[in-house]
Amino acid sequence: MGKITLITGGARSGKSRYALNIAAEYKNKVFLATAMAIDDEMAKRIQAHKEERDASYVTAEEPYDLAPVLKNIGSSIDCVIIDCITVWLGNLVYKHGDEIKEFEEVRDFLDHIGKCSADLIVVTNEVGTGIIPDNKLAREYRDYSGIINQKIASHADEVILMVSGQPLVVKGNKKHE
Amino acid sequence: MGKITLITGGARSGKSRYALNIAAEYKNKVFLATAMAIDDEMAKRIQAHKEERDASYVTAEEPYDLAPVLKNIGSSIDCVIIDCITVWLGNLVYKHGDEIKEFEEVRDFLDHIGKCSADLIVVTNEVGTGIIPDNKLAREYRDYSGIINQKIASHADEVILMVSGQPLVVKGNKKHE
Amino acid sequence: MGKITLITGGARSGKSRYALNIAAEYKNKVFLATAMAIDDEMAKRIQAHKEERDASYVTAEEPYDLAPVLKNIGSSIDCVIIDCITVWLGNLVYKHGDEIKEFEEVRDFLDHIGKCSADLIVVTNEVGTGIIPDNKLAREYRDYSGIINQKIASHADEVILMVSGQPLVVKGNKKHE
Repeated sequence: MGKITLITGGARSGKSRYALNIAAEYKNKVFLATAMAIDDEMAKRIQAHKEERDASYVTAEEPYDLAPVLKNIGSSIDCVIIDCITVWLGNLVYKHGDEIKEFEEVRDFLDHIGKCSADLIVVTNEVGTGIIPDNKLAREYRDYSGIINQKIASHADEVILMVSGQPLVVKGNKKHE
Repeated sequence: MGKITLITGGARSGKSRYALNIAAEYKNKVFLATAMAIDDEMAKRIQAHKEERDASYVTAEEPYDLAPVLKNIGSSIDCVIIDCITVWLGNLVYKHGDEIKEFEEVRDFLDHIGKCSADLIVVTNEVGTGIIPDNKLAREYRDYSGIINQKIASHADEVILMVSGQPLVVKGNKKHE
Repeated sequence: MGKITLITGGARSGKSRYALNIAAEYKNKVFLATAMAIDDEMAKRIQAHKEERDASYVTAEEPYDLAPVLKNIGSSIDCVIIDCITVWLGNLVYKHGDEIKEFEEVRDFLDHIGKCSADLIVVTNEVGTGIIPDNKLAREYRDYSGIINQKIASHADEVILMVSGQPLVVKGNKKHE
């Protein structure tokens, strides 16, 4: 099975760019984008991220069901970037009617993450370190995000926390520091 | 005096579980729980945490005055987990009428933390790294949390930041990494 | 050119105090304060920070245009503390009418940061790791803060993340740990 790297950090901490940096050494790459252009602001963010990627990537856009995409990754692909988990979870919350329970799409993804032959670089966000949100849905969202991040990290060979664009190795060897 | 370990991190970053992991090597343990079951959501969180603990723990529930509990820890006890500081501070804010000043219970606790014969494992939260809250009480709460965390950390032999369930040593030796 | 150190972290994580600690070895120092006493709460914070500084500092107060201050730093000055970037960005947002675009003052500062002969110690805040703010301005502010932090960090010789008052080296040598 492939190596798994989890890249976490706050907004605009350089997570996506770092994912692209460590993917640069691979030849046949898939970029699995979870964001949907639901409004102008989001469309601009997606466009800005696209412009950072070169032509060596095949882009797959999937806002909900990531496991089937991973299952269909052919053996010629040696690296998949998934960007990102917290946006994906937000999509699932909207899809399932603003209620948070254990989503089947999440369970399928977590079941499949250790079975992909390509190396996986998974981008997520730290959303749990502010003041407790007033809003129950926001609290449940940040709890579920944290639980998913922990599960991915437990599978991962490396966990990297981005701070001001700089990588800090949380799990794995320290060569990236 | 006992060794002090401070475990900090965001919501659902694996802090309580890590505290239980490092306490596993001790025999006679107290779990000092600060949470109150003020509503169903909280009752569920408390119950979920209880189910993670085995029978080797004596549970003490104290939402306000931690120093007397520490003073009464007998010499047969070799480890006390305090879970957690930020919930305790929230309890004190409610008790003292939603106004934040230097609370006597906090001062007593900080005075006593270095005098306990058992090893202490203290769980807290990082609450200061989001956008500045609109709400004055929330700003004061996060300031006071930060100040208390700093004081505990200055006493501590080890400070651990949990990121996605993985420990990052901030202070102390790196054997846990 | 001087050495650049970026100190980041949450509210009340000990950033300013750590900046003063590492500046203690210098003789001729400027403290460039960006905060304005716009209300009592802010005035108290400024006063508390002032009381932590000894008489070896020349204080410069500049809420908007930092580059000219840096340009006027004489060669006799060996250390400048800038405290802090996120408050400065907040000032610029108010000044420019609550709209965030690329501010000229920011561009000038980033252009000049690598050209100062004195060593620079720059204090900033991590604001991007909570739940996504409801408010568009808050989202833009945290994005811009993150981008500025990344740019300063890319110039910096050392990047330090403060956690509960303890320094964690993110970039640079590990002697401070």
